[in-house]
Amino acid sequence: MGARRARQAKGAKSVACCPYYHEAIELIGKRWTGAIVGVLLNAPAQGSGGLRFSEIAQAVPELSDRLLSERMKELEARVVVERTVLSGPPVHVEYRLTDMGRALQPALSVLRDWARQWLDETDDEPTAAPARTTAATH
Amino acid sequence: MGARRARQAKGAKSVACCPYYHEAIELIGKRWTGAIVGVLLNAPAQGSGGLRFSEIAQAVPELSDRLLSERMKELEARVVVERTVLSGPPVHVEYRLTDMGRALQPALSVLRDWARQWLDETDDEPTAAPARTTAATH
Repeated sequence: MGARRARQAKGAKSVACCPYYHEAIELIGKRWTGAIVGVLLNAPAQGSGGLRFSEIAQAVPELSDRLLSERMKELEARVVVERTVLSGPPVHVEYRLTDMGRALQPALSVLRDWARQWLDETDDEPTAAPARTTAATH
Repeated sequence: MGARRARQAKGAKSVACCPYYHEAIELIGKRWTGAIVGVLLNAPAQGSGGLRFSEIAQAVPELSDRLLSERMKELEARVVVERTVLSGPPVHVEYRLTDMGRALQPALSVLRDWARQWLDETDDEPTAAPARTTAATH
């Protein structure tokens, strides 16, 4: 907090970062969280509308069960996701988005459009440095 | 990649996560990156439209110069930001968004709206657990 206060004391800039926006980016951008929310947004509407843990795990590549469990607890604590225990047999747990979580749909949908337009095209380009600096010799 | 392929081999789910979307979330969601892009999007349009390193640093709270420098290099490598050296004296460096970077504006704007609506209201609520479990006694 010291660095933040020191910088703010220099005078607020017109370009200053909105704290809620920053918090939203940190929330959604935490590793795998955006992917998990995206999967829950795409969950079929029929039936309960919820997804089981194993269904989320299958839909999100490269995410360990331990880390998925941690992320689901965080999302539940932030009231983005709600967890429901359904009586059995067999007893099972389902996850669905809260109103707050579903309200992320427009933002994530526009981000998905951006991704399809810009990341698809740049897939074959170098990500380390512009090519022009290495193409001077023949 | 092993875990991803193993899961995909089980059969593609209709809820599966779009890889470009995931890449976009990882790109923007990397700690401080979304904040930096937001600051550049808000940069005044008059003059060169670019921001100096020190202006970005002042606008983003709690970000060290070392980490900001790292993030700017990453954003330049991903062609989200372009860096221009302006001849002096004194020589100085400016950063501005590329077309790809400016194209993030709609998605980040909608995310900002979500943040203002939902994070403002929940600021006073506990983030660890629902309050109802601790309010049973008087």
